[in-house]
Amino acid sequence: MEEIRVDLGERSYSILIGDGIIEDTGEIIREWELDGKVLVVTNPTVAEWYLKPLTDSLIAAGFTFKVVMVPDGEVYKNLEEAEKIYNLLISNQYDRKSLLIALGGGVIGDLTGFVAATYLRGVRFIQIPTTLLAQVDASVGGKVAVNHPRGKNLIGSFYQPSLVISDVGTLLTLPETELHSGVAEVIKHGLIMDENYFQFICGEIQLIREANPGIMTWIVAGSCNIKSRIVEADEKESSLRAILNYGHTIGHALETITDYTGFKHGAAVAVGMIAAAKIAWQLEVLKDASLIDQLIELCGDFNLPVRIDGFSIESIIEAIYYDKKMAHGKVNWILPCEIGKVIISAEVSESLVREVLKELGGSK
Amino acid sequence: MEEIRVDLGERSYSILIGDGIIEDTGEIIREWELDGKVLVVTNPTVAEWYLKPLTDSLIAAGFTFKVVMVPDGEVYKNLEEAEKIYNLLISNQYDRKSLLIALGGGVIGDLTGFVAATYLRGVRFIQIPTTLLAQVDASVGGKVAVNHPRGKNLIGSFYQPSLVISDVGTLLTLPETELHSGVAEVIKHGLIMDENYFQFICGEIQLIREANPGIMTWIVAGSCNIKSRIVEADEKESSLRAILNYGHTIGHALETITDYTGFKHGAAVAVGMIAAAKIAWQLEVLKDASLIDQLIELCGDFNLPVRIDGFSIESIIEAIYYDKKMAHGKVNWILPCEIGKVIISAEVSESLVREVLKELGGSK
Repeated sequence: MEEIRVDLGERSYSILIGDGIIEDTGEIIREWELDGKVLVVTNPTVAEWYLKPLTDSLIAAGFTFKVVMVPDGEVYKNLEEAEKIYNLLISNQYDRKSLLIALGGGVIGDLTGFVAATYLRGVRFIQIPTTLLAQVDASVGGKVAVNHPRGKNLIGSFYQPSLVISDVGTLLTLPETELHSGVAEVIKHGLIMDENYFQFICGEIQLIREANPGIMTWIVAGSCNIKSRIVEADEKESSLRAILNYGHTIGHALETITDYTGFKHGAAVAVGMIAAAKIAWQLEVLKDASLIDQLIELCGDFNLPVRIDGFSIESIIEAIYYDKKMAHGKVNWILPCEIGKVIISAEVSESLVREVLKELGGSK
Repeated sequence: MEEIRVDLGERSYSILIGDGIIEDTGEIIREWELDGKVLVVTNPTVAEWYLKPLTDSLIAAGFTFKVVMVPDGEVYKNLEEAEKIYNLLISNQYDRKSLLIALGGGVIGDLTGFVAATYLRGVRFIQIPTTLLAQVDASVGGKVAVNHPRGKNLIGSFYQPSLVISDVGTLLTLPETELHSGVAEVIKHGLIMDENYFQFICGEIQLIREANPGIMTWIVAGSCNIKSRIVEADEKESSLRAILNYGHTIGHALETITDYTGFKHGAAVAVGMIAAAKIAWQLEVLKDASLIDQLIELCGDFNLPVRIDGFSIESIIEAIYYDKKMAHGKVNWILPCEIGKVIISAEVSESLVREVLKELGGSK
């Protein structure tokens, strides 16, 4: 079992990573002295595989708990579902010493975290992420939120979990497209911060594709390590943390124009990373174009999209512009200089963005 | 103008206290570099007196702003009103640099603070408290919340304002019962922490009753100072901060059994303080009974209740017991030893509580 410590002063916590460790949850909670009345939040899809090992371990460790099921899907990450969980907590007199456990992917983690952040002015919660994306991304950073009909994650806060238990064994049952979506963020971590990590990924493509637990333990640990270093330096995203948005400017725009149904998050980020690298090349921020080729090849290895054929350039530009209005009229682009190093720049012209989108197959 | 600094590391902020300073708000925001698109949250009662001076000053300082009215009353401190504010913020594309201004008493402050804590993972907010209770109590400590049908403040978080502007001139238009309700908390601050402050209050009863701005500036500053010292030592209420609950165990029970309509908050706390002092006397924690007499006299000077004639002892006990279940089976009583000093004790028998309630006029 690997342990990554996220060092945020009094809000520090650990991420435990290993194969099959869900079934040790009860014991782990005792060991970490996080005892309390437990509420498990999960969805039917995840529950089918992993609820029993979790509850068995809670029972074995002598915990009192209830389970609440949230229907599967991003559309349920809303205030209404949060209210249902509040109601359940209140009806069952969960007090300040309560412990919420989020068993599932990003939706379950974000929703449970939001409830934990706001119930009785904050109760403890443990994340048990069951997707690669949640293990390498949502598990570090403390971003909790629910969606609003007008946009994703508009209601939320920064609230750190007490512990994250990342069982890489769960990745074996993850649909391939979900696994690959997580890999996109893994690739991103290498590209923005750590060339050795990037080369390690390139050397283990086959084992990653198989979600080999040994390799995935290293991958999850590696990504959490990189993301922790960034978040530790800038918890509330006032500066450095923005580099984690590499690939996300165009990525978010693609998700928005397809109403979050056209792309898995990581797939949108993959093509966004390629676009941003091409912008960096045009601006001579990126000195060696081989990075673009390597990135395209790597994305291809994981069936991640590398082009945007058929998507309207105009719609993408408009979606970027909407974000722009939200951020005081400026888009901060994250541009790679070399593998492991990026810069933040607001000096990217709309016409250059259009040009690169066209090059990637965007339509009029 | 007085300034009290609440020192909470990166969450530190200042409380400005003075007569008529609402009309300097625009200028103050510029001076403190809190510029941003402003949303003012208030209610019709407060707006009638103080909205124009506020908006005039915002206009004079060149701010863009909108105003949202929340109906007057505790019953509107709920998620539904919070959602209305979210909708307005989103429709008008308020971004992360937004500035929310809470103009009003505790309801407006708590609701606005909750929205600020959870909109886009946290935007800045300024409190302009217009009741004595909000000026001496809610303005320090960062407790923000909305109510749930099953209980007060069940949904909320700790979130510090960027600045508090306490205009003691507003106290001149405050209904007498509201002023006196605030005075109860002021008395509490003296009793739990500062004998000199307590004696100062005793010496200025007439001017306090008149809400004399000069005296009230000192009172608000004095209370904020005391509360700050406590909150600085224990921001999240894990230990010391509990002493602020002096008078609140029985006080809350009285509010609960009268469905929050029988007592102003401070009135309930006043009689709660007397009851707790009597308990302390019985347990020989309090060595000099003259504290009880002084407290009763002082409460009388502000028409605060000193007895509970006609209220059912059984109901009060039950209400205390409900709180008890929420707090892992123990009631922590705050008991005075002398003026300016209290202890926290869980060693109070139910029978002693009953006895004191009976002594104060409680009925079978």
